[in-house]
Order: sequence, then structure tokens, then C-alpha cells
Amino acid sequence: MAYKYLLNEEDIPRKWYNLAADLPTPLQPPLGPDGNPISPDDLSAVFPMNLIEQEVSSDRWIDIPEEVLELLYRWRPSPLHRAVHLEKALNTPARIYYKNESVSPAGSHKPNTAVAQAWYNKQFGIKRLTTETGAGQWGSALSFAGALLGLEVKVYMVRISFDQKPFRKLMMQAWGGKCVASPSEETQAGRDILAAHPDTPGSLGIAISEAIEEAVGDSKGETRYSLGSVLNHVMLHQTIIGQEAQKQLSYAGEKNPDVVIGCAGGGSNFAGLAFPFVHEKINGAEIDIIPVEPASCPTLTRAPFAYDHGDVAQMTPLLPMYTLGHEFIPPPIHAGGLRYHGMAPLVSQAAVEGLIAPRSIHQRHCYESALMFARTEGLIVAPETSHAVGAAVDEAIKAREEGKEKVILFNLSGHGLMDLAGYDYYFSGEMEDYDLPEEELQKFTSVLDGYPKPSMAKTGNW
Amino acid sequence: MAYKYLLNEEDIPRKWYNLAADLPTPLQPPLGPDGNPISPDDLSAVFPMNLIEQEVSSDRWIDIPEEVLELLYRWRPSPLHRAVHLEKALNTPARIYYKNESVSPAGSHKPNTAVAQAWYNKQFGIKRLTTETGAGQWGSALSFAGALLGLEVKVYMVRISFDQKPFRKLMMQAWGGKCVASPSEETQAGRDILAAHPDTPGSLGIAISEAIEEAVGDSKGETRYSLGSVLNHVMLHQTIIGQEAQKQLSYAGEKNPDVVIGCAGGGSNFAGLAFPFVHEKINGAEIDIIPVEPASCPTLTRAPFAYDHGDVAQMTPLLPMYTLGHEFIPPPIHAGGLRYHGMAPLVSQAAVEGLIAPRSIHQRHCYESALMFARTEGLIVAPETSHAVGAAVDEAIKAREEGKEKVILFNLSGHGLMDLAGYDYYFSGEMEDYDLPEEELQKFTSVLDGYPKPSMAKTGNW
Repeated sequence: MAYKYLLNEEDIPRKWYNLAADLPTPLQPPLGPDGNPISPDDLSAVFPMNLIEQEVSSDRWIDIPEEVLELLYRWRPSPLHRAVHLEKALNTPARIYYKNESVSPAGSHKPNTAVAQAWYNKQFGIKRLTTETGAGQWGSALSFAGALLGLEVKVYMVRISFDQKPFRKLMMQAWGGKCVASPSEETQAGRDILAAHPDTPGSLGIAISEAIEEAVGDSKGETRYSLGSVLNHVMLHQTIIGQEAQKQLSYAGEKNPDVVIGCAGGGSNFAGLAFPFVHEKINGAEIDIIPVEPASCPTLTRAPFAYDHGDVAQMTPLLPMYTLGHEFIPPPIHAGGLRYHGMAPLVSQAAVEGLIAPRSIHQRHCYESALMFARTEGLIVAPETSHAVGAAVDEAIKAREEGKEKVILFNLSGHGLMDLAGYDYYFSGEMEDYDLPEEELQKFTSVLDGYPKPSMAKTGNW
Repeated sequence: MAYKYLLNEEDIPRKWYNLAADLPTPLQPPLGPDGNPISPDDLSAVFPMNLIEQEVSSDRWIDIPEEVLELLYRWRPSPLHRAVHLEKALNTPARIYYKNESVSPAGSHKPNTAVAQAWYNKQFGIKRLTTETGAGQWGSALSFAGALLGLEVKVYMVRISFDQKPFRKLMMQAWGGKCVASPSEETQAGRDILAAHPDTPGSLGIAISEAIEEAVGDSKGETRYSLGSVLNHVMLHQTIIGQEAQKQLSYAGEKNPDVVIGCAGGGSNFAGLAFPFVHEKINGAEIDIIPVEPASCPTLTRAPFAYDHGDVAQMTPLLPMYTLGHEFIPPPIHAGGLRYHGMAPLVSQAAVEGLIAPRSIHQRHCYESALMFARTEGLIVAPETSHAVGAAVDEAIKAREEGKEKVILFNLSGHGLMDLAGYDYYFSGEMEDYDLPEEELQKFTSVLDGYPKPSMAKTGNW
């Protein structure tokens, strides 16, 4: 028996899988401020046209350019591990596998789309990328990609994170990225906020506003904005994860897994692992596909499917998605990457269709499971990833109780070495679990009443 | 052309290589306080007898127990990368390869010996391990190993590092290790120091004293001490690195490399990569084998080969090695793992014999090279590793100037994600290079005058 399954470079998938081609009900379009569908041209000041084409594509398979593959080869294919030691500790008949995305130089799955986005921007003649970052994973990944392709990268980092996590800024700097605290003096949006609230800790919404303002304000047209989750082309770029896992499982002598698990904030690591299996499910395979979110930020499990902005500042188009409302402020749990009010439209639509079975989970159980994982398998996972570990542990225990030899696959989306403060808090014994009170949920989702409504239909019977 | 060369688990080396078997002049023994060679029994309160047997073995090949291999499979074999992008940036005809030891869960090569030592201790009936740590790499690695094997681990961490690097302590804690600031109230040595100097920042020497005191003071005999470098059995356990690299280079279509490079503090990552190639050199291959050290701590390049203690507190036996004197205090350069006054006896003896060609290097050149590496190959290396990168860059430029297609191999001993403060200092423009003044060297090495002298003979002509 092997402990891990490696692939050589020639085994890397050559195409991205686009779930939009296979959804029983087609994706509903993003809407502009007037409530009408927006056109690709409306987005052209923000994104390069080649990525906009991917964003709206309904082709099932999209070729990965050879030069993007060469960028990915720096760390891909990533290993698939069999979690033998965790299985023993849980005394479960289940076979647990995890796809290890923590081996990328930035420590997470984010570079899969960062290098692709940077490459397409460069092809389009773009010289500078702007973005925002909260916890810092995405800003690091885009800086890494910018270094490899010789693009300037400017990252607006939420001020409170900027101050609390100086090492993230240094990572970006090591890759040549410029990281500034947001709000900053460098944009009108930033200056306005600072004038009104000089001591603000900042927010992701403000940082997005600054990054977009800088991108669209470049008079030479050489700057674009880049987003690390939510959008269709981001989900697309991540599907390399699940396709590799399929090949590796077959080398391990497994058929389709019984359970596929990923944590879900904006949706990208979950989609990356899960969508190729959703494809199998649409074609008849029986697989439980589980996005896991914090109980304190229960987008897929408790929020409505509605049209909403992707950001607090309401700068983005209206997207059809599960959303807690763009003014929702999640409690300060430690998985910063899962504290997002919305969810990728593709993931949302898959949930509407019943193709995936969302689940929410408490953070103390996540840390408890992550520590069990660290002390058996050896890897210290990111706070976000601990949600996938927690659900995998639950499923393995369920398999033991049912006496079933299930195959469980989860995505180890990132290591936790840059985010150990959450572990400290857990060790202190003071970490609390949060459940969103129903009245809070009602309050935040009431802003959605004024927006157009997407249609909602479960067409299949999965 | 491939970008990296992976090995499957069945390709892992099954034996460790012991350079002691092949050195033209046998290693000279450690000496006790009376100046006489110490016996294995003298060490038995500190180390388990099975590791002491390895320490004094002159067998060329030592079987790696199957259970140790299974521990190593969690992350080994490690990848060998071809640094194509760095080659392009340097416009060199050289082919540069690096062995990526940063993929271990602890982020460095240290777990290679940590899991082996923990396993042998457990076999011997030991239940607790003590050790010291400076920068934190070794304390993390031993905590990791203790978690996998169910051994308690207690780490005495030099107080100033403990205070400056709270995340290292959390890493150890995540793996169940107990990390305390040294000097502590938990040992007589610690209490004595604290009584005299309540505000001391601590030192590696004090931490070693505390760790050994706790190990030998266990009345049940269930505790031993564990060291992460310098000793023969530590070098032995690391030779898996070079053996894997040999196999991977042959898969890449290469013969022996022309140049092999590793950074050298206590010597373990250098020895791990280099000793299997020293073996080839003894058997006739032409290879330049280069341990790289900081110019500020020039043990192999400027210090005498002498008998000296391994620690400031003079608790260890006298070891035959290149040494700056056990009272030497290196300037505050950022590669904490290279700030050691001595050098592994096996590495020292290889230098005496002329089998390896030590080199010293300045830290600003190291950081400059590490940034070039991060922005081409994508990996942010540890400050220690930047010394190997700096020397590899120098060798690649030399190959360009000579117009030679050399093959250069270096050890990427660890990533720098937990040690980014050095990059910050470099970016500030205030980082300085240090050269040890001759009068300082004389002052610190004068303590060696009172000790026995090892014989010194270069026997071969390499």
C-alpha cells in the first residue's frame, strides 16, 4: 500500500472543466445597476477580454495553454495522500484521501488561478494587476504569479490584517508585489474614507473599491483588476485539482469516491476539487459532494438564493448566488477566507440543483480535528482547511458507525504556517462557537428585497 | 524537458550511507573531561544505546528500518527540481538542480533525523525527549516526530527567540510539543542563571544545559536528549537526501554533478546532500563539493581544526572539529541556523582530507540571490538556505564566464515562511555584511590552547 500518489508532469490535465456546460439549468447572467444583464464589454475596463470570454463561456472543456502548464509545473501535479494514520486513529473502515494543495510556493491552491490570470492578462498586453486581500493568501498568490510573469502587482490589504500580519506583506514583497494598507491615500475611495474615519480598520469592501478604482483609472489602459474567487473563470482554473485527483484515485485502485469534501468561502477550492466529480454525478455516479462552511457564516446552508453584489461597496454587478447580504459582517472566527457573505454563482447553482449537499460546522470542532490531523498525518492545516478536515472526520466516524468501507476525499487547500494565531486562541480555551441568530440573518438579508430575483429550480434527482 | 523529478515510495533509499567507513583517516574519538576517549557507556544517560551504536559505527551502509521508512513516506522522496527559470535569468550554460527539502511538514530537512531519532528512542523504551532550539527549526521538527510516535517532547527555546518568534512555539504546540523559554525555572541550571541574570536573553548553551539536565535527571530513566545536528548519527540519517538526488539526476539523464552545494551550520543538511557524492569522489569522480558558511561565522574557512566542546556550557565531550571556540558569539546575522561555533566532526574530517572545498559568503549577496530565486523559481527560501542559493548563483555565473555546461546541484534545505524578518531587514537597506576581524578570531580560538590536539593529515589528492 502506498501513502501517496504522485503524478509526473506529462500526467497533468490539459484542459479545464467548465461546469457551466453541464448544469441542468443554465447560469443566470450578472445584472448591471439598471437590472439588465451586463455585456462582456461592460467588464472590459476591469478584466482583459480573454478572461471575460472564459467567464461567459459555455464550452465544457477549455484548453490550458502550454505556457500556463509550464507555470503550473513549478509545483504541480500536487500529491494525493492516503490518510492511513488518521484512519487508524479514528478506527474507521473508511479510506480517507486528501489532495495536498499546500505544496505550492504560496502554500495554498490560490496560485492555480493566479498564474493563469496573470498569463492571460500579459497576453492581452496588460502590465499591472491590482487586487485586494484580507487574510493575505490571495495577495501572496497573485504577487507570486506576477513575479513569474514580470507583471507589477499592487495589493490593497485590509488595514487590520496589514497591521496584524506583517509577514504576509513580506511574502508579497519577496515576490516583488507592492502591498499597501487599505484604506490608503492612493485612491479617491481611500482618501474619502480616511477623511471621514481616520482610524478605520478597513474592510474587504473598501479594499475592492480601491483596487478597482486604480485599475480602471489607468489612463494608458495597462492595468486590470484580478479576483481570487467567486467568478466563473476562477472556478474553471481550479478544476485541475479534481482532475488530478481522479487520475490519482484510479492509480490507487479506487473508483469514484463516496464522499468529496472541500471548505467553501467564495467557493474556489471546493469547486476545484468537486466540479470534476459533479460532472461524474451528472453522468450517473453516486457521490455525496459536500461544501463545508462555518456555522457563523452559513451562506449555502441558511441564506437565500438571490441577486446581490459581490462586495460591500456595491461596485460589482449583481450576481445570482446564495448570499447573507452584502452588508453581512461575520463574527471574528479564525478562518478569514471563509468570512464572505456570498458564494460563487457556479457553486450556488450546483446547490440549487441539488448536485451538492452543503454543510456548516463549528470552529472548535474544526481546530480539534485539525490537531488530530497534525498529530497523525503530520501537516498543520490552514484555519479554512480545518473545516474540510472536520467534515472528513465526521464522515469517517459515520462510516465506522455504519460499518461501511467508504472512500472519502477532501481538499487540503492550504497549510497553516502563516496563520497560527487561531491555534493559539484554540489552545487558550477561550475560543467560542458562533451560530448566526435567525433575527440577524433576517436583518442582513432584508437588503436583498429591493433586487431582482433569480429563478430557482431543482431539475434533477440526485 | 521536465521541470522536476519525482520518485515513488518504492524508489526511496533503503540504507543510510556512513561516510565514517570511507574516510581515508578514521575519525578521532570524542574525549572526556580527563582527556581520554569516552566510551559508549559514558553517553548512555544522554542518548539511547541503539543511537550510540550508530554514532560509533564504521559500517558503510546501515539499514533503514521499515517503520522509519513509513514515517518518511509522509513527505519523502522529496522532489528534485531543474531551476530552468533561474538558469534563463542568469543566462548560464549550467544546468542547475535543487533538492527540495522544504516540502516536509516542518518545512526543512530536520525531520529526516527527527523521526529516526524518535523511532530509535521509542524502540529503546524511552517515553520523553528533551532538546533545545534556537531559531526553532529543530524544536519544530522534533515535536512533529514526537507527535507521530507518541513521545512527549520538551523544547527549551532560547528566550529571545521565544519572545520574538511566538509562531514557532505554536507550531511545536500544534504537534503536542511543550516549548518553554530558556533559562527556565524548571531546571537547576535555569534557576541559577535566572537568579544571577533575571533579564538574560538566554543562549543556546544555556538551553542545551537545561535539556541535558532534564534528560539525565529523570529518575525512571525514561527521558533522553536529542540533538539536531553535529553528531555522526544525525549526518547519517540525512544521507537519504543525496541518495535520492543521485537517482533523480540519473532519471534526468545526468551523470555525477560537477558542483554540489549545501549551506553549513552544524553540517547536517550539507552532509545529507553531499556525503553520497563524497563517496563517489573517493571512488574517482571529479566533483567540487562546497559547504557554504557565513563570512561572519567562518568555521570551516578560517578556524583551526581542534578539540572543543560542542556547547558554551562545556557540558558535551570534546569533539575533533573546525571550531571558532565555544565562547564565540557570531554577529546577529539572520541565518540563525548557521550561527554555530563548531562543525560536525564528519564534515570537519572531510575538509581536513581535502574532499570538500569550504567557502564563506556575505549575507547581502545571499538575500539578493534568494530574491532572484523567489522571483524566477517561485520559492522563498530560509535565510540559511540563501547561502546555498548564493553560491549556486556564483557557480552558474562562473560557468557562463568559462563557457562550460556544468551541472550544479544544491540543497534547498528549507523554506523561509517562518523566518521572513530577515527579508524585511534586507528590504530596509540597513542590512550589513560582517567579516570576522582576525584579532577576534584569535581571541576566541585561544581557549583551545589548553585542550588536546587532534592529528591532522590530508591523505588523498582530490
